[in-house]
Amino acid sequence: MTTIIKNGTLITAADTFEADILIEGEKISLVGKNLQPPAGAEVIDASGKLVMPGGVDPHVHLNLPMFGTVSSDDHYTGHKAAAFGGTTTALDFIPHGPGSFRENIDGWHARADDLAAIDFGFHMNVERVNDDVRKEFHVLGEEGISSIKVFSAYNNRMRLQDGDIFRVLRMAGERGYLTMMHAENGDVIEQLVAEALANGNISTEWHAHTRPAWGAVEAALRGFAMAEQAGAPLYLVHMNTGGETDMLQYARERGLPVMGETCPQYMFFTLEDLQRPDGAKWICSPPMRSKADNERIWKGVMEGTIQTIGTDHCPFFYDGTKPILYEGKEVAIPGKELGKNNFTEIPNGLPGIGDRLPILWTYGVGSGKITANQFVALCSTNPAKIFGMYPRKGSLMPGADADIAIWDPEKTLEYGVKVAHHRTDYNLFEGWKLKGYPEKVFLRGKLIVDGQKWMGKAGMGRYLHRDASAEVL
Amino acid sequence: MTTIIKNGTLITAADTFEADILIEGEKISLVGKNLQPPAGAEVIDASGKLVMPGGVDPHVHLNLPMFGTVSSDDHYTGHKAAAFGGTTTALDFIPHGPGSFRENIDGWHARADDLAAIDFGFHMNVERVNDDVRKEFHVLGEEGISSIKVFSAYNNRMRLQDGDIFRVLRMAGERGYLTMMHAENGDVIEQLVAEALANGNISTEWHAHTRPAWGAVEAALRGFAMAEQAGAPLYLVHMNTGGETDMLQYARERGLPVMGETCPQYMFFTLEDLQRPDGAKWICSPPMRSKADNERIWKGVMEGTIQTIGTDHCPFFYDGTKPILYEGKEVAIPGKELGKNNFTEIPNGLPGIGDRLPILWTYGVGSGKITANQFVALCSTNPAKIFGMYPRKGSLMPGADADIAIWDPEKTLEYGVKVAHHRTDYNLFEGWKLKGYPEKVFLRGKLIVDGQKWMGKAGMGRYLHRDASAEVL
Amino acid sequence: MTTIIKNGTLITAADTFEADILIEGEKISLVGKNLQPPAGAEVIDASGKLVMPGGVDPHVHLNLPMFGTVSSDDHYTGHKAAAFGGTTTALDFIPHGPGSFRENIDGWHARADDLAAIDFGFHMNVERVNDDVRKEFHVLGEEGISSIKVFSAYNNRMRLQDGDIFRVLRMAGERGYLTMMHAENGDVIEQLVAEALANGNISTEWHAHTRPAWGAVEAALRGFAMAEQAGAPLYLVHMNTGGETDMLQYARERGLPVMGETCPQYMFFTLEDLQRPDGAKWICSPPMRSKADNERIWKGVMEGTIQTIGTDHCPFFYDGTKPILYEGKEVAIPGKELGKNNFTEIPNGLPGIGDRLPILWTYGVGSGKITANQFVALCSTNPAKIFGMYPRKGSLMPGADADIAIWDPEKTLEYGVKVAHHRTDYNLFEGWKLKGYPEKVFLRGKLIVDGQKWMGKAGMGRYLHRDASAEVL
Amino acid sequence: MTTIIKNGTLITAADTFEADILIEGEKISLVGKNLQPPAGAEVIDASGKLVMPGGVDPHVHLNLPMFGTVSSDDHYTGHKAAAFGGTTTALDFIPHGPGSFRENIDGWHARADDLAAIDFGFHMNVERVNDDVRKEFHVLGEEGISSIKVFSAYNNRMRLQDGDIFRVLRMAGERGYLTMMHAENGDVIEQLVAEALANGNISTEWHAHTRPAWGAVEAALRGFAMAEQAGAPLYLVHMNTGGETDMLQYARERGLPVMGETCPQYMFFTLEDLQRPDGAKWICSPPMRSKADNERIWKGVMEGTIQTIGTDHCPFFYDGTKPILYEGKEVAIPGKELGKNNFTEIPNGLPGIGDRLPILWTYGVGSGKITANQFVALCSTNPAKIFGMYPRKGSLMPGADADIAIWDPEKTLEYGVKVAHHRTDYNLFEGWKLKGYPEKVFLRGKLIVDGQKWMGKAGMGRYLHRDASAEVL
Ligand SMILES: [Zn+2]
Ligand SMILES: [Zn+2]
Ligand SMILES: [Zn+2]
Ligand SMILES: [Zn+2]
Ligand SMILES: [Zn+2]
Ligand SMILES: [Zn+2]
Ligand SMILES: [Zn+2]
Ligand SMILES: [Zn+2]
Repeated sequence: MTTIIKNGTLITAADTFEADILIEGEKISLVGKNLQPPAGAEVIDASGKLVMPGGVDPHVHLNLPMFGTVSSDDHYTGHKAAAFGGTTTALDFIPHGPGSFRENIDGWHARADDLAAIDFGFHMNVERVNDDVRKEFHVLGEEGISSIKVFSAYNNRMRLQDGDIFRVLRMAGERGYLTMMHAENGDVIEQLVAEALANGNISTEWHAHTRPAWGAVEAALRGFAMAEQAGAPLYLVHMNTGGETDMLQYARERGLPVMGETCPQYMFFTLEDLQRPDGAKWICSPPMRSKADNERIWKGVMEGTIQTIGTDHCPFFYDGTKPILYEGKEVAIPGKELGKNNFTEIPNGLPGIGDRLPILWTYGVGSGKITANQFVALCSTNPAKIFGMYPRKGSLMPGADADIAIWDPEKTLEYGVKVAHHRTDYNLFEGWKLKGYPEKVFLRGKLIVDGQKWMGKAGMGRYLHRDASAEVL
Repeated sequence: MTTIIKNGTLITAADTFEADILIEGEKISLVGKNLQPPAGAEVIDASGKLVMPGGVDPHVHLNLPMFGTVSSDDHYTGHKAAAFGGTTTALDFIPHGPGSFRENIDGWHARADDLAAIDFGFHMNVERVNDDVRKEFHVLGEEGISSIKVFSAYNNRMRLQDGDIFRVLRMAGERGYLTMMHAENGDVIEQLVAEALANGNISTEWHAHTRPAWGAVEAALRGFAMAEQAGAPLYLVHMNTGGETDMLQYARERGLPVMGETCPQYMFFTLEDLQRPDGAKWICSPPMRSKADNERIWKGVMEGTIQTIGTDHCPFFYDGTKPILYEGKEVAIPGKELGKNNFTEIPNGLPGIGDRLPILWTYGVGSGKITANQFVALCSTNPAKIFGMYPRKGSLMPGADADIAIWDPEKTLEYGVKVAHHRTDYNLFEGWKLKGYPEKVFLRGKLIVDGQKWMGKAGMGRYLHRDASAEVL
Repeated sequence: MTTIIKNGTLITAADTFEADILIEGEKISLVGKNLQPPAGAEVIDASGKLVMPGGVDPHVHLNLPMFGTVSSDDHYTGHKAAAFGGTTTALDFIPHGPGSFRENIDGWHARADDLAAIDFGFHMNVERVNDDVRKEFHVLGEEGISSIKVFSAYNNRMRLQDGDIFRVLRMAGERGYLTMMHAENGDVIEQLVAEALANGNISTEWHAHTRPAWGAVEAALRGFAMAEQAGAPLYLVHMNTGGETDMLQYARERGLPVMGETCPQYMFFTLEDLQRPDGAKWICSPPMRSKADNERIWKGVMEGTIQTIGTDHCPFFYDGTKPILYEGKEVAIPGKELGKNNFTEIPNGLPGIGDRLPILWTYGVGSGKITANQFVALCSTNPAKIFGMYPRKGSLMPGADADIAIWDPEKTLEYGVKVAHHRTDYNLFEGWKLKGYPEKVFLRGKLIVDGQKWMGKAGMGRYLHRDASAEVL
Repeated sequence: MTTIIKNGTLITAADTFEADILIEGEKISLVGKNLQPPAGAEVIDASGKLVMPGGVDPHVHLNLPMFGTVSSDDHYTGHKAAAFGGTTTALDFIPHGPGSFRENIDGWHARADDLAAIDFGFHMNVERVNDDVRKEFHVLGEEGISSIKVFSAYNNRMRLQDGDIFRVLRMAGERGYLTMMHAENGDVIEQLVAEALANGNISTEWHAHTRPAWGAVEAALRGFAMAEQAGAPLYLVHMNTGGETDMLQYARERGLPVMGETCPQYMFFTLEDLQRPDGAKWICSPPMRSKADNERIWKGVMEGTIQTIGTDHCPFFYDGTKPILYEGKEVAIPGKELGKNNFTEIPNGLPGIGDRLPILWTYGVGSGKITANQFVALCSTNPAKIFGMYPRKGSLMPGADADIAIWDPEKTLEYGVKVAHHRTDYNLFEGWKLKGYPEKVFLRGKLIVDGQKWMGKAGMGRYLHRDASAEVL
């Protein structure tokens, strides 16, 4: 199939220019002026429109079991929501369950492959280190998983001790895998949670009080220090505090091979949202912080201290007892109401995969904080480079997969749960005004979103076998 | 004329990918995979080669009268040297001589137009502010001069008092011109020079001692502060101190519309070079500083605090009494020897227009300090954007002028005056080992450099009518 | 006369301890435990009280002609107000009027000597640099004036060009005088004032808008840079912006011999106060800034970046047409009302000499921002050291002048114009609640304040012949 | 006994002045001008001499068992060496051996009380946290031990996990104890040591390579973060990296209740010393770092970021097979030679208790880096305040213990093992030139050092029952 996108303004991570794009099969084959449509080519007129590479979301959790329920978007519904928001690639995390890496990977493919509606890859959590793990470490790369995640929090669950994190960094460095880190201080959290419950402090805001910001700050620096000592790169996920940004800047200025990701929720919301009657909607880990944290993170994004913006998409129903209509059928999945009497039982996570690009376009580019080129870099090109998918993903250049979002810069709308396509009953950005929105989205040359019309389907998404030894930005 | 560059690795300010480029007439028309050469097209095989936009040098002084002599490269010889180094656009400065702006501009066109061998534009110095200047300010934009330069040093010559700099910023802001600033403290320099001469301190190193670094640091911040107060952008030229870099970072972190440029000489040389017996070779203003300054500037370049690298190319002969052979003829132009008994009489300036890209490639990209994408951004795309030439210049995208440098990344050589094409008798980088060098250079589709063969000629270069209200990066 | 202060808690710049003090004649002669009162000694019981060295105010303007009127406190009334606030030494500035330094000094002695009620010294403004000034520079030191002040603002009035400031620094450095600097950008202010008036912007807040903060920031750094280049110390007066504090920290961290002073008004008030209907009360130069500036200045004070807190006391009546009662007589002096139609005609200055210590005690020490030892250092010991009066002033140690304030730490009151003793009709801190207040104040062993009773008199204050080459803190 | 020290220049943490001191019994009773010696008083003429409070060393290890030997100074020999260097108070650490706190404390009193030659106190290591520890925590305060130490390194020995450190901070905060922290990353060290040994890297420099600087930096921030979260102060011991200083500044600027100590060895020596053939002399934990670290630490000391300078005195013989002569008898104690084939077996520690004041006087005060007042603050007043001994110790004010060092500022000598009185066979500062040296030292009014004559004796030193809830500087 051949498609030609004519007269659009192309935006890459550095360039903005007017040109036509020729798509042959799944790939962009030509970028040029006044391209003649080959016979039989579909011609899309993008006059007055912006043409960008599809978004790459480096951090999502689909169909993730938690607290006796499961995140409410699976690989079909989550991917579909992503696509409507202009995102065409998403990476999610395989829990390190019992059994070998290969068994866990196979299990996750079983959940994802038939449902996937955009291209996808897997990160592997490493939640224990032992001889089996060491012997099987090569399997990850062989399976196209060139990034792993470690946790310094969640004692007795995902947490690794520092020594094991360090050993993982060493092993990862040897194979060119990128280590991602969830940085909080598990011991302090465990103690504070115990104290809070003992004192009867069970409301939603205690989720934040028991996961204090300084713990994230020091754990981030701890991770950076171990990366330096191991001679291996580290990627700090979901930065939510100004102090983490300070530490990332401090470490990078001293030449450490470290990078960072934030998410929209940490750029716009605060503890005050957690204190609302429906504060459970904002419960995720790490928690919302302060306005000063929001601002410092924005500054880090604007100055290039932070390399990517992901979502940590992991939605739950606010009230999982009341069904919503999804593709014509009623669906209800137990959610935040599970913890209505105890913040520790509220599933941790919130929707975002579809919100990321539209929200950042209006409130980042539109507000003059970042340029359109930075928007593309942060949300598409940089994650593609960092996670070994570039130049296949994150690029409009010939040879790249034809994953393209055509934006209408003049489109205005009021955002919220009625517009977003997440399979959940609320949206954090309910009622926000937007200007600029994806109009058409292509996945490897196929039109999957056309205005509000869904043209994709389950199983179209392809698994991405990602390269090791990717760029450290 | 049609040319196709096949199988190269294209490098833009953000992307690296393999593709072919089709050049039709003066423009890049297509970027694509497996392009079929049109009939009659010249085919260049760039297998194993790197294809980058030609360099844009934002800061040169050609045929500039000084101290009774003239900078030894004119618009032909300087442009030719630039081209051999991969640079295809250069902006030089029109002195604000007696008479109107228009007279000065006409005079400078008379010097440049027939000689120009690459594309070129002009900045206008503003060395006085009065009613004539105010009334004629619009002429600059009309003549395609969207950038002006002010000086806080050179008392009784180019210097403006702060009030006049401020008024210029206001006027420039209103018209979208970019104000460039040479930032030193003229009063302190004047006093220190008088003291040095009174004390018999006439050796070359006193050039540096009488232009102290702290004066540059405070004058830079003074400029930034005035820019903020005037609501107009400012571009700090030839940053040579760590302190200026600190101040630029300080100001940018607080949202001021300010940018900065450094030059290779300030990244590699120090006061110790000025103290050599042939120290006059390193005499330029501002002077060489310390190793710590070099390092801080590198850090600023690596982190994006500094947006561009120019050259301040303004060569003089080291010994203008001894002719060199240039294009087969003997040439001698009075130079550094004029000040052999008094550092204040040594013409200020040094060669660099041809050295910039090769030196930064080996010692910046090759050493791992910056990526190839940053190299393109710093030396080509960013100056093109900042000075209103983008996307015509600084880009490989369709629609751009076909200004292209094909690099051989494996080429090794020993650099120096025999390799460089400046019309002078020395080179600062004499004997430096290089790896990676421009092999073919195109100017608007015409091959002007082919290995060591010069295929350009005087008059080929075209004057660039630049846009006002360009991007503030 | 012999006095013994028993059972008090002594507070110095570093120590806090219980001891008795013996005063013999004008000096502290003994500090000890359980001192036996000599026969005839007056015994003061200071149980439960704090005993501190009297305050040293490094920056006041008494009886200063301005805008056709005069600051409303003369050397008697200003000193008396100081004493009630616990201050026993004040340094004021001699304008550099026509005539020689000696004539100016003599003239100022004529204003001050017979009125002085506390000890006092003079700084000399240097408002022009010429041969007369150069030849007579030694006179300053001979007259006990070891500190001078220069201005980078007030064009056509007090301002010196940079070159002259630099030359003054050189001359001062040679003689061990300390150069003080009022740092703003006179040229920018002149232009902005002209623009404001041309646009009809005449309300009080325009006083601040026409003296922008960034101008103070860069001028501060300019002063520091010149100090470094001149090899002479510099003392930045009345720091009012966070940026100045940043620059002072930057310069000091790099070893520059520079120090800074702030004043209470810059720690508590903002542009919003200038925007009040009675905003003229807050008109002084430099102007009030933002809450963020207040906070940064506090941080600088807490961390030791800023060495002293003075007042820049220079009061005017808010409404000089309405007399107040002062020592039983009606007094009215033209004041702020002079500029009711034009902010540029409002006399610049405000009261503060008596407020400094009580306000800082409650809102600095009482609030936990600074310790009592820091309070003594900032308000007494440091100014005494910096200005060549130590250990005669600023100390409780034997040999020091017996300038002592006994504080009642439990005394509470509501502050304001009824409590303060300034000869003006308003107080900036009207209605503020205080805890801790001076109860008895001694000047060289004589009790001059006893509760609300004034026991001092005009002429008691003695002129301080200050040392050159004092400590650079 | 009554003594009067006449005509000296007294130096406190803030003041410098000439006065006499009267000592009655163990206390300073008077400070005054021209004191009349009481009948029978001993009169010391201190004309031309400096009179300072005796040094307070907050960090020493006397008679400490390690690696099958013991630190070679016991409470007598170490105290004697301290006294010769002007130090009159030392705090050492009780290991948390098996048994109750009370048993451990009793055991340490048994080692110290009869030998002590200067006043002394104990810190308590907390090396495990369990119900016994919790129940007995009050005993520490009751025994006058108001400071405890925790370790994030030394896995399987002294180390506590983060959760236990946090719980200790909570408990300490409740009782007003100060928590001290040895901050390195034990897990990383354990892994690196294993790797080094596996690779045959056994030379002394591997001591430093296996305890990397970044581990100290992050562990410091970890400690600060936990202190903030626990609401309790923390004191970082033996700061040896620039990064720790950065983090201490970062934390203090944000209002955290944290303080820091460095030691002379970290201000003067580097990895290069460890690489010397006799590098074992410099083996201590944490290790020597780089020149840049030295400089950053000095800067932290000069600016007040770091509050105290201790020694971590813990000497071993360089060659414990060869006896030295000590008080006329041959002594040999196994030392550094134990690890001649394996750096991990070299006892960790070095001499310093006697060197601290003389070295810092010449190379800190003499070199102009710190003032004499800062010297007193860092080495005496601040440790006394922080550790609950003020104003009894660290002060020259009436009521203070008469612990006094009279310095001869003109005395010059070559320092080294022949001059120092440590019971070991080497000195780190061998051959260093000194100017300024203690001449007479008093402990609670008794002359214990008179030139090179030792007048103290075992058992004179008194145990200091220290206050809880001391000042956080
Ligand atoms: Zn996470
Ligand atoms: Zn996640
Ligand atoms: Zn210049
Ligand atoms: Zn130039
Ligand atoms: Zn002033
Ligand atoms: Zn003033
Ligand atoms: Zn330790
Ligand atoms: Zn220790």
